Amino acid sequence: MGRRLRVGLVGGGLDSVIGETHQMALRVDGLFELVAGAMSIDPDVARASARAALIDESRSYRDYREMAQAEAERDDGIDLVVIATPPRTHFEIASTFLAGGINVLCEKPLARTVAEARRLVDAVQRSGLVFALNHCFTGYPVVRHARDAVAAGVIGRVTMVEMDFPSGDVDLAREPADPARRHWRFRPESMGRAGILGELGTHAHHLAEYVTGDRVTTVAATMHTFAAGREVYDNAYLTLGLSGGAVGRIWTSYVAIGNEHGLAFRIYGDEGGLLWRQEDPERLWLQRAGQAPTLLTKGGAGQSAAALGSSRFRPGHPEGYLLAFANIYRDLGLSLLAALAGDDPAPYRRSLPGVRDGLATLHLYEAAERSHDAGGTVEVVGQE
Amino acid sequence: MGRRLRVGLVGGGLDSVIGETHQMALRVDGLFELVAGAMSIDPDVARASARAALIDESRSYRDYREMAQAEAERDDGIDLVVIATPPRTHFEIASTFLAGGINVLCEKPLARTVAEARRLVDAVQRSGLVFALNHCFTGYPVVRHARDAVAAGVIGRVTMVEMDFPSGDVDLAREPADPARRHWRFRPESMGRAGILGELGTHAHHLAEYVTGDRVTTVAATMHTFAAGREVYDNAYLTLGLSGGAVGRIWTSYVAIGNEHGLAFRIYGDEGGLLWRQEDPERLWLQRAGQAPTLLTKGGAGQSAAALGSSRFRPGHPEGYLLAFANIYRDLGLSLLAALAGDDPAPYRRSLPGVRDGLATLHLYEAAERSHDAGGTVEVVGQE
Amino acid sequence: MGRRLRVGLVGGGLDSVIGETHQMALRVDGLFELVAGAMSIDPDVARASARAALIDESRSYRDYREMAQAEAERDDGIDLVVIATPPRTHFEIASTFLAGGINVLCEKPLARTVAEARRLVDAVQRSGLVFALNHCFTGYPVVRHARDAVAAGVIGRVTMVEMDFPSGDVDLAREPADPARRHWRFRPESMGRAGILGELGTHAHHLAEYVTGDRVTTVAATMHTFAAGREVYDNAYLTLGLSGGAVGRIWTSYVAIGNEHGLAFRIYGDEGGLLWRQEDPERLWLQRAGQAPTLLTKGGAGQSAAALGSSRFRPGHPEGYLLAFANIYRDLGLSLLAALAGDDPAPYRRSLPGVRDGLATLHLYEAAERSHDAGGTVEVVGQE
Amino acid sequence: MGRRLRVGLVGGGLDSVIGETHQMALRVDGLFELVAGAMSIDPDVARASARAALIDESRSYRDYREMAQAEAERDDGIDLVVIATPPRTHFEIASTFLAGGINVLCEKPLARTVAEARRLVDAVQRSGLVFALNHCFTGYPVVRHARDAVAAGVIGRVTMVEMDFPSGDVDLAREPADPARRHWRFRPESMGRAGILGELGTHAHHLAEYVTGDRVTTVAATMHTFAAGREVYDNAYLTLGLSGGAVGRIWTSYVAIGNEHGLAFRIYGDEGGLLWRQEDPERLWLQRAGQAPTLLTKGGAGQSAAALGSSRFRPGHPEGYLLAFANIYRDLGLSLLAALAGDDPAPYRRSLPGVRDGLATLHLYEAAERSHDAGGTVEVVGQE
Repeated sequence: MGRRLRVGLVGGGLDSVIGETHQMALRVDGLFELVAGAMSIDPDVARASARAALIDESRSYRDYREMAQAEAERDDGIDLVVIATPPRTHFEIASTFLAGGINVLCEKPLARTVAEARRLVDAVQRSGLVFALNHCFTGYPVVRHARDAVAAGVIGRVTMVEMDFPSGDVDLAREPADPARRHWRFRPESMGRAGILGELGTHAHHLAEYVTGDRVTTVAATMHTFAAGREVYDNAYLTLGLSGGAVGRIWTSYVAIGNEHGLAFRIYGDEGGLLWRQEDPERLWLQRAGQAPTLLTKGGAGQSAAALGSSRFRPGHPEGYLLAFANIYRDLGLSLLAALAGDDPAPYRRSLPGVRDGLATLHLYEAAERSHDAGGTVEVVGQE
Repeated sequence: MGRRLRVGLVGGGLDSVIGETHQMALRVDGLFELVAGAMSIDPDVARASARAALIDESRSYRDYREMAQAEAERDDGIDLVVIATPPRTHFEIASTFLAGGINVLCEKPLARTVAEARRLVDAVQRSGLVFALNHCFTGYPVVRHARDAVAAGVIGRVTMVEMDFPSGDVDLAREPADPARRHWRFRPESMGRAGILGELGTHAHHLAEYVTGDRVTTVAATMHTFAAGREVYDNAYLTLGLSGGAVGRIWTSYVAIGNEHGLAFRIYGDEGGLLWRQEDPERLWLQRAGQAPTLLTKGGAGQSAAALGSSRFRPGHPEGYLLAFANIYRDLGLSLLAALAGDDPAPYRRSLPGVRDGLATLHLYEAAERSHDAGGTVEVVGQE
Repeated sequence: MGRRLRVGLVGGGLDSVIGETHQMALRVDGLFELVAGAMSIDPDVARASARAALIDESRSYRDYREMAQAEAERDDGIDLVVIATPPRTHFEIASTFLAGGINVLCEKPLARTVAEARRLVDAVQRSGLVFALNHCFTGYPVVRHARDAVAAGVIGRVTMVEMDFPSGDVDLAREPADPARRHWRFRPESMGRAGILGELGTHAHHLAEYVTGDRVTTVAATMHTFAAGREVYDNAYLTLGLSGGAVGRIWTSYVAIGNEHGLAFRIYGDEGGLLWRQEDPERLWLQRAGQAPTLLTKGGAGQSAAALGSSRFRPGHPEGYLLAFANIYRDLGLSLLAALAGDDPAPYRRSLPGVRDGLATLHLYEAAERSHDAGGTVEVVGQE
Repeated sequence: MGRRLRVGLVGGGLDSVIGETHQMALRVDGLFELVAGAMSIDPDVARASARAALIDESRSYRDYREMAQAEAERDDGIDLVVIATPPRTHFEIASTFLAGGINVLCEKPLARTVAEARRLVDAVQRSGLVFALNHCFTGYPVVRHARDAVAAGVIGRVTMVEMDFPSGDVDLAREPADPARRHWRFRPESMGRAGILGELGTHAHHLAEYVTGDRVTTVAATMHTFAAGREVYDNAYLTLGLSGGAVGRIWTSYVAIGNEHGLAFRIYGDEGGLLWRQEDPERLWLQRAGQAPTLLTKGGAGQSAAALGSSRFRPGHPEGYLLAFANIYRDLGLSLLAALAGDDPAPYRRSLPGVRDGLATLHLYEAAERSHDAGGTVEVVGQE
């Protein structure tokens, strides 16, 4: 590596929750430098954010379109744009940068509708660019080990996937007294009434597909609203069928009061089970038929090559959320650097969620709304 | 107490799994003595079982009918019959002893059908006898505390109940090579195809109602069969509506490979949540909105009077499954002794599951089958 | 078994903490019946205790001497006496019943001094009677598995034993305002200033020897008093050498505020480690060099024959403190019944702590006091 | 902040374990940039390491002395040197950079002897420079909360500190077959026979002082060697007295086979206890007399200002070892930037371990060797 990859950031300014995490994650491995940004729709915040990030004033843009054009024209233009804006803007921003020939790392969910997502899939295919979707929890080493263990048949044929993402922060569980202070994720115009599926459910859905290698093909959904004054669902129950014959469930909620995060999976096959919780993310329980359960730890005995390669420290040194997040960046960065160097980027892309994973979530989202409205189980159309 | 209560046991012989547990539970507090039995349909086993239990030969019966009649006629006849036979025999056995004026402790599920259950409810009402249903997990002190905490408003208005009972013993997860060795619980003639709801699901269902004080009023069920050669469902997903406005789910399974037991609840209200797992049964997590979670332990600070009264040892001394089981016996015994002494038995019956709880499970069972066959959500009829 | 073994209880009345546990433990397996008692030095309490236990009035004694004599003379005299009195009375009571030809189950610690303990060892040897010491925590199935695993070389040569028993009940951590209400365990006249070693430390010491099969041969002790107004030590640190070359430590305390029980071991060899906590007593961690740690559970895969034989329920059904306690009774009962039947009682005695284990604790006690007073490491004399 | 602070790295090259962690930690918050290095005594490794870190070739030095001189003379010379070399070199390297007027972040232990440490204390005092010692585990938010809780009297007067650091990596637990491949930490010439105290024990010792605010004033040590062919101690037991009247223990080991890390504390006062384990570093148990225990989580309810200020993500998002490590860098960076800007750096130095903490460890080290050789308890001289 002779140089760092140049990154531009859309959104993720000082008024954003996730922006600082992106900035830490892109810095931590030294593969990227943040050189450009359109970091807020508020020009003052955008400017202040760029200054805080030591971005040269000339590359702090007021508008992502301006940024895409200017950066595309520079010799030292950005190699990658990171899209950290609310979901309803993803489609237009991503389309613009792809059109400018710039690789994309996009926050989830990919887009607002199946139609938008399909057009992004096509745009990526046409462009030959890399499009990564920030399903950050797949960056945990032991999650990658779980995927590899399932693929290696360690738990046999997958039968049941139990995916939880019930959150319960007080701030999420209740609407603010002043509706003007409502977060965008609770506005129906953001992602419709079922926005919880794009915000939280997508992680559970993606993990199920990531670890099992199957697609969710049927869903029965019931969704509820508990918070007073809320106009969107804040609790969702999904019962699933998977392409490989397994069944499963997703529970996601904003009103599981007192839960801090809540993402977890319990995946069973006819020979064993794998259990994981994001709040204790370095440990994976493996319980095999007729054997004492074993605790597989990050970097510990028996981890797959991909899991070991995603681990930075010796066993017993927790890596945490940031390094899971950073593993997405690292895989993406090494893939881009390999391509620049004329090497094969494929190995680095194997663990990287992409545009098709984003489309899959939108298909689920659409089917879940259909099921909720009609009752009963429906097909998730378009799964490939 | 001048004497021990006299108990007869139907089933529960040396060829039974649960029989030894009943015998330990009835002995442990010294309130009962086992004096009569029809302990197996195999006469040799029945005799050997009675001998092992030091039952006088004259009170080892070949048949429960004979036993009911003989014991009803004795001056020192049994005060209580314990029914520890397979579910499809409960109705007839219980009816017979009730007709003979003998109090009943019956294994769950109460009966095979709603119709049977209704007739038992009527018979109990007419007889004025005590009929206890062995929902043993409600005997854990902290489960009783959970019920009292919900009633006291500690978690606010209940919103969601998440009930798990996914088991995964290898012996349960697979059919035996020789169909003749199939356990009765996997025979369709026992409890129909959905017998898992009577065997496991009933505990989850009852706990939900016991802790919340609400009834399950709607259900959407999907059930599956995973084990090769199996003729009944071995996995069930139920989505619930409750009388108080909460929603919830039950997951119960025989094929969650590697799970030892699996019964657990996570019950949320708009002010907090209560979490419990049967495999760690002395601890109850209480997480209240905006506060650090606290671990409520058996006998520890802040336990309700009923919880403390159900605890035998100092904090830190695990009481385990047997004493939960024995708490059902103790409440029943103290209630019967109070009645014998002319005292008010009501306080001892407050925590005791009864015939109406058994009927509630049958209603759920019937509705779940209806939902599974028709698709979608159905009403649980007959809930009172 | 044609009859139950007849038991008499010295101490353990309604004014005792441990008495009810003994009564439950002796009843639970149906091997014993309580028929005689001298259950309190307060005659009213003794009488009420006997009545509550349904002991015939004629066998409720005012004095243990009277009881020993009367029971020894009866044709249906007791087979076993259980001594549940404060430690300073153990020597005389045990000697009396041994002299009367009656088997003994004695609470720990065995006696007050090495001299007393030695005389009891001799008396037992002369009598040919069974003398069991109630080290109840060795009754946990997985503790027995730990012993068998060490003996089988699973963790290699033992190197380090880390024994904890820091308790922290508020009632133990502080002296009562009224010295008259001081519990006997905090009275110097009971067991000297280092009584904590006999009350708590003995469990840690015995477990170390039980699991490793080694004897503690050297000790360096420092002891402290934290509670205001207390005249005995309430915290003790012991650094140990063991006969097999291992080293280790014992920490025991009454002032580890907020701990409920605290007994735990972490035992390491050159090939692995075994970790256990009494508050989670059905689980034993096995961590072997270069392998993922496994969680060995009561009744689960890979348990030793002795561990399985000490387990009553299927895996996942916690057995708790009472059944650990009851395993001492059961082993003792089966051993006595085997002897009565002319069979070999040896297999049932293998797991049973005895009078020599009690002597070992007194040797440690004596050495620890010597070390504390002189400073530095001293030999534990008399270890065999 | 108009610019990043310029950092030089001594050691920490591609042949180092800790080097990559330092590089990630200095990058993650964007406060520093690595611009110079003498990263290995092997010139090829040094060059390759500098290239990998994108350090300009002209600032990749063959020797730390050359680096100190050259950087001190540059206008854009380094603001900070990070010393990530083996301990026996710390004194000379640190002295050299201090003499050059360059701030220091030094790996622990500070030096090899009390004499060296004292001279460094003097040099720092004379220079007015910042000298931080990398006690990285104090960077965990809940560890800082523990310190603040003790200072606020939450657990009352501290009575006992129980500090564990028993590691058990197979690579540490056994000597390599080829002595030439022995790690420096197992060479007697590095830190003497008791090097384990400088390598591991220092973390336990520092945490005890950090959290309680007391100094360790007496020690009784026994140390052992278990690994075949090893010339240094690989297990150490220390019994402590503290300046505030508390007592305590440190256990540190390389041969606790199967432990991954092992650092943990249990700190008790007369009103409660605080318990923490580095392998689960976002959670702190608080158990107060007569109350149910509460689980204090990173960023959660009731955390101190310093703890919240050291936390980067929302609750439920584990921060891990890297961000604890980075908190040392961040406090140091903000302190240096404040000084550069003419602001008060004191607030940022409050949580930052320094040269006096390093001296304290050397005093303990010296006393422990004295105790081990002589037997019994000795004073830790020189504690201030």
